[in-house]
Amino acid sequence: MTDADALRRDPPRLPPGAFRSPVRIRFSHTDPAGIVYFANYFDMFNAVVEDWVNQALGLDYADLILTHRRGLPVVHAECDFLRPSRMGETISLGVVVDRVGGSSIDIRIIGEHGAGAEVETRLVGRLVLVVMSVDTHRAIPIPADLRSAIDSYRTACHG
Amino acid sequence: MTDADALRRDPPRLPPGAFRSPVRIRFSHTDPAGIVYFANYFDMFNAVVEDWVNQALGLDYADLILTHRRGLPVVHAECDFLRPSRMGETISLGVVVDRVGGSSIDIRIIGEHGAGAEVETRLVGRLVLVVMSVDTHRAIPIPADLRSAIDSYRTACHG
Amino acid sequence: MTDADALRRDPPRLPPGAFRSPVRIRFSHTDPAGIVYFANYFDMFNAVVEDWVNQALGLDYADLILTHRRGLPVVHAECDFLRPSRMGETISLGVVVDRVGGSSIDIRIIGEHGAGAEVETRLVGRLVLVVMSVDTHRAIPIPADLRSAIDSYRTACHG
Amino acid sequence: MTDADALRRDPPRLPPGAFRSPVRIRFSHTDPAGIVYFANYFDMFNAVVEDWVNQALGLDYADLILTHRRGLPVVHAECDFLRPSRMGETISLGVVVDRVGGSSIDIRIIGEHGAGAEVETRLVGRLVLVVMSVDTHRAIPIPADLRSAIDSYRTACHG
Repeated sequence: MTDADALRRDPPRLPPGAFRSPVRIRFSHTDPAGIVYFANYFDMFNAVVEDWVNQALGLDYADLILTHRRGLPVVHAECDFLRPSRMGETISLGVVVDRVGGSSIDIRIIGEHGAGAEVETRLVGRLVLVVMSVDTHRAIPIPADLRSAIDSYRTACHG
Repeated sequence: MTDADALRRDPPRLPPGAFRSPVRIRFSHTDPAGIVYFANYFDMFNAVVEDWVNQALGLDYADLILTHRRGLPVVHAECDFLRPSRMGETISLGVVVDRVGGSSIDIRIIGEHGAGAEVETRLVGRLVLVVMSVDTHRAIPIPADLRSAIDSYRTACHG
Repeated sequence: MTDADALRRDPPRLPPGAFRSPVRIRFSHTDPAGIVYFANYFDMFNAVVEDWVNQALGLDYADLILTHRRGLPVVHAECDFLRPSRMGETISLGVVVDRVGGSSIDIRIIGEHGAGAEVETRLVGRLVLVVMSVDTHRAIPIPADLRSAIDSYRTACHG
Repeated sequence: MTDADALRRDPPRLPPGAFRSPVRIRFSHTDPAGIVYFANYFDMFNAVVEDWVNQALGLDYADLILTHRRGLPVVHAECDFLRPSRMGETISLGVVVDRVGGSSIDIRIIGEHGAGAEVETRLVGRLVLVVMSVDTHRAIPIPADLRSAIDSYRTACHG
């Protein structure tokens, strides 16, 4: 049994307070088998991180990079693709924070389709982001405003 | 210490007999920080699987899907990004088979830059592929010719 | 003087009734120079056509392809990139129908930033779509419901 | 009759001396109809420009941008898609220079499949590139070495 099989039997759900971003599945997301091409999900994950920083953490993602010269490169990414998604569907990608280190932020991204009792977990991803100076390309401590916003999010998320 | 830190200290190397595909880093692979955007690596991984099936396993990837109606969807993907790559560089992406199940193939993709004593491991990825019927969208047993070709590859790889 | 120079001096504007789709410029849309990589605009154009068919024409784009087996492949695409767009900006991509033939639909896609007197035309694109049978890969006459919806749109757009 | 129809009847061919770059059609280039998704061709065009600068003009594309801080943004792009391409095929993308201005370079990219009497023109694209300062984001005169290399290429191409 693969990890994906185990997750398929007992899939995680997003907590009620988690930030969710709706993603419409486009023609260009899908492959000759008519389902989303796996690599496209990782690009969606980055967009969800942007939305999460802007909307849930209340910071400005573009400003963080362009003005404050701090990047959030991904040092680890993974995903279990539990069930396929098709063109025309809208899935919800939500963020759960698992761990915050000195420079790194470890999040899970859970993709769900449907609502209420009909919710189906389509995928479970994970990203480890590191706060970096865009100029020196070195990891730097998580800035205080970002750390504080993440702490508040975790409380709200599980509250 | 993250997994990426541990891998960075003691990075895996491709065995001498492993299939390698050169990948030129393009302008469009890179991001505003001048390094490869992580999601693009997963697209490169799929291209490497195609090349590996065609060139190292001696089967025809397009034919497998279009004629024999068997897909190789990815049910799990992950990658540790150890060191960044930049436009104009050529990296080598090689394939190591870790496990072959009834329907699934578990491979590692190791990305290296440079040659000889100068080799630097840039990334260590992993894909779990499942052999699927394109028509029923269900997993099917690995076909005999594919299984036999993978067995031969593993022997050649570590020989 | 290039065509782009001429368009930059006297840029077209979307008519008030035109369908507009907001597009948020993502980190992954941009290149090492910090501006949107041109090829990504063409992918945005296809998404806008999907939204236009669904929301302005009142048809179901996914259904058209998956159920009715009619595709809308692009046989000609072009774009003048007048002014660059940057991460964090939201631009409006709107659709103007220029010509409807037996099987083909010729549209302009105008990308604007800002509102009111501050509107800036960022790009002017054009797509020629052909209605095709997904099974025979041959052009077919535009279905009556699609033609009628486009006629109504053109009236509303310029009304 | 669309322009694409006219081009289909009397397609242009690459001159014998033109630079050609082979492009393998990947699974991820193709769409649910099994043919290359049009927007992916524009990304291939940029890769061909990189190869052309490196291999045919003898300059270093990455160096031009990263060291000399000169970009080659696309201010106009277009393509007629004459015949579809499928996964597993290899097409040849070649470059013809149509016009060199003070800051701009106007090229055609012709995509062919097959060889000898069997050559089929799959697409005819056009890009207008402008030499730009990456720092000021303004057009600058074409540097002497680039202009001279393009002149030599045009002579070799049609010789």
